Amino acid sequence: MKSALEAIYHIRCEAGAIEERARAIAVEQSVEMPVAAIEDERVLREIVGEVCAIRELGNGLFEARIALNAQTTGHDAGQLMNMLFGNASLLEDIVLHDAILPPETLAAFGGPRQGIAELKARVGAARRALTCSALKPQGLPSTALADLARRFAQGGVDYIKDDHGLADQAYSPFVERVEAIAGALRSGGYKTRYVPSLTGDLDRLRGAITIARGAGIDTVMLAPMICGVSNMHAVARENPDIAILAHPALGGAARIAPPLLIGKLFRLFGASAVVFPNYGGRFGYSRQTCKALARASLDRWGAMRPAAPVPAGGMKLQRIPELLDFYGHEVMLLIGGDLLAARERLVDETKAFVTCVERYAYG
Amino acid sequence: MKSALEAIYHIRCEAGAIEERARAIAVEQSVEMPVAAIEDERVLREIVGEVCAIRELGNGLFEARIALNAQTTGHDAGQLMNMLFGNASLLEDIVLHDAILPPETLAAFGGPRQGIAELKARVGAARRALTCSALKPQGLPSTALADLARRFAQGGVDYIKDDHGLADQAYSPFVERVEAIAGALRSGGYKTRYVPSLTGDLDRLRGAITIARGAGIDTVMLAPMICGVSNMHAVARENPDIAILAHPALGGAARIAPPLLIGKLFRLFGASAVVFPNYGGRFGYSRQTCKALARASLDRWGAMRPAAPVPAGGMKLQRIPELLDFYGHEVMLLIGGDLLAARERLVDETKAFVTCVERYAYG
Repeated sequence: MKSALEAIYHIRCEAGAIEERARAIAVEQSVEMPVAAIEDERVLREIVGEVCAIRELGNGLFEARIALNAQTTGHDAGQLMNMLFGNASLLEDIVLHDAILPPETLAAFGGPRQGIAELKARVGAARRALTCSALKPQGLPSTALADLARRFAQGGVDYIKDDHGLADQAYSPFVERVEAIAGALRSGGYKTRYVPSLTGDLDRLRGAITIARGAGIDTVMLAPMICGVSNMHAVARENPDIAILAHPALGGAARIAPPLLIGKLFRLFGASAVVFPNYGGRFGYSRQTCKALARASLDRWGAMRPAAPVPAGGMKLQRIPELLDFYGHEVMLLIGGDLLAARERLVDETKAFVTCVERYAYG
Repeated sequence: MKSALEAIYHIRCEAGAIEERARAIAVEQSVEMPVAAIEDERVLREIVGEVCAIRELGNGLFEARIALNAQTTGHDAGQLMNMLFGNASLLEDIVLHDAILPPETLAAFGGPRQGIAELKARVGAARRALTCSALKPQGLPSTALADLARRFAQGGVDYIKDDHGLADQAYSPFVERVEAIAGALRSGGYKTRYVPSLTGDLDRLRGAITIARGAGIDTVMLAPMICGVSNMHAVARENPDIAILAHPALGGAARIAPPLLIGKLFRLFGASAVVFPNYGGRFGYSRQTCKALARASLDRWGAMRPAAPVPAGGMKLQRIPELLDFYGHEVMLLIGGDLLAARERLVDETKAFVTCVERYAYG
């Protein structure tokens, strides 16, 4: 098959049945019909998925590598997801483990227009890890969120993202919130970037970007599995000067290996930074998963810029040295709740966070 | 909490830990921060999620009902998904089982603009179940797909949908395909409806609808979990005369109970008909899941029109009586591969399908 992409599945299956199962998945993810009923020679030769390799991983788990014609994606992000895992997501006991994409697919999507180097350059942090915190809880009025942002900025944090629960709600409407928070940072002369969360259909995403631009904002957040990967790719394509933080909401349960979904595919579709649940926090990702995800977002991949891995989810200040040992300085550390819990000492705790990252000596 | 929506989770947990676990989920899905750090009284009273009830389901499984303020959704479909399961999707051992939404949320989304009654009226099938088949394999040129459509129409099928793998690919570009297939049906004077599959971002969805309208088409298909539920809702809102078939691709693995995701939420966001994997076919849904899903799509729910349940996925002609016994006549039966496998007898087999449905006597 020329110009193939390769989908790598992990399948729980009896050893005697794995070959047939892999062939069935190759058919499901390509022509989705009985192969015997296909008369067209070109379809049989070029479109029907091919099982390239099967290997046993142990404990009844097998890896099947299946080649699919890259033409089937039509260079649309959603259609790429569909080809990799559309119907297979409905099958039991299958995980989409990885995907190997041909150079023209990488070039067509293009990856982040602003990568981790650009995120660092904006805040003058070329030689250290980035710091990030979060504005919450939702329900606060915009003025209270702006006050919180000002205090985080006083503490010297690089990026302040909206809680991903913040959308366009009556208690802090998007326009009002963005102007209040961006205004607070601007008037204080801080280099700190505010990263508003964008929600809704593509029209609303675009409208939100126009508002954000108007307020001098150059970084935004969205959740690709909620807003649709094609919409995220459109936003990335249309706004090459804007950096995009991708939030994993709704993506964790998709039985797609997180290093692939969050590390590779979100990056492919234009994310500058990818938020994910760190090991040892409130979520269940392992150290191994987190390491693989961070590597996937940073590794050399075609001509694509590296995206910043952003471990998050119940992180504590005292873990910073451990996390920097683990991730190195090509990372954006996101600590939200632990700083907010400091209440009246929030500025000091934020300073402690920033100082710890700045002074960390890489061994 | 006034104007609450209720999310119902199934949680695998030790009996001694379930209360704390449920509270943690209520916090995760609302304010996502330590509650002790929240100073705003209104946020504590109105925004922090509340555990309303916990009951044991047996075998270490518990049901927790959690009330969330409906204001948090900002009446956006994606944000509703986010509030129901955004971060919780990243937690292990939690299924979003059901959701109870307040009347103003139902009214804000509005459900299908064309329901099952309208789908039936278009093809003069008020008193029987609907029939549907699928155009595949992808890779065929548009002329071959049009020829296939003509033969399905000769057999008298009501609806012919694109395979969900058909997008905007070089071998059958969307514009060319739609014109070829719609033209073939129009010139034959068939009442059969062609249902093209729409893909891409919202611009491309809108462009595709304009093309489809131009070809006289009044029903389209899209995959909400790929294109984004907010985009589907925008399409439904902007095109009240167009019926929408929702395809479950990428939706099956989301650890959201299929009756909720496919039966209720897709309907809420505007689907006229919801495709799902039928029991006893290639996929693992149980009879009970399929029945609950069909009920959710049809049951009285606010002022919303019922959506047609569309069981599919490896269905055979000989199962029609069984399926009509099971689903009744408020259903659209979708048989693709089994008809295509008939090859030169495709028209006859399609006639047999249609006749069997027409003659079926409800007991």
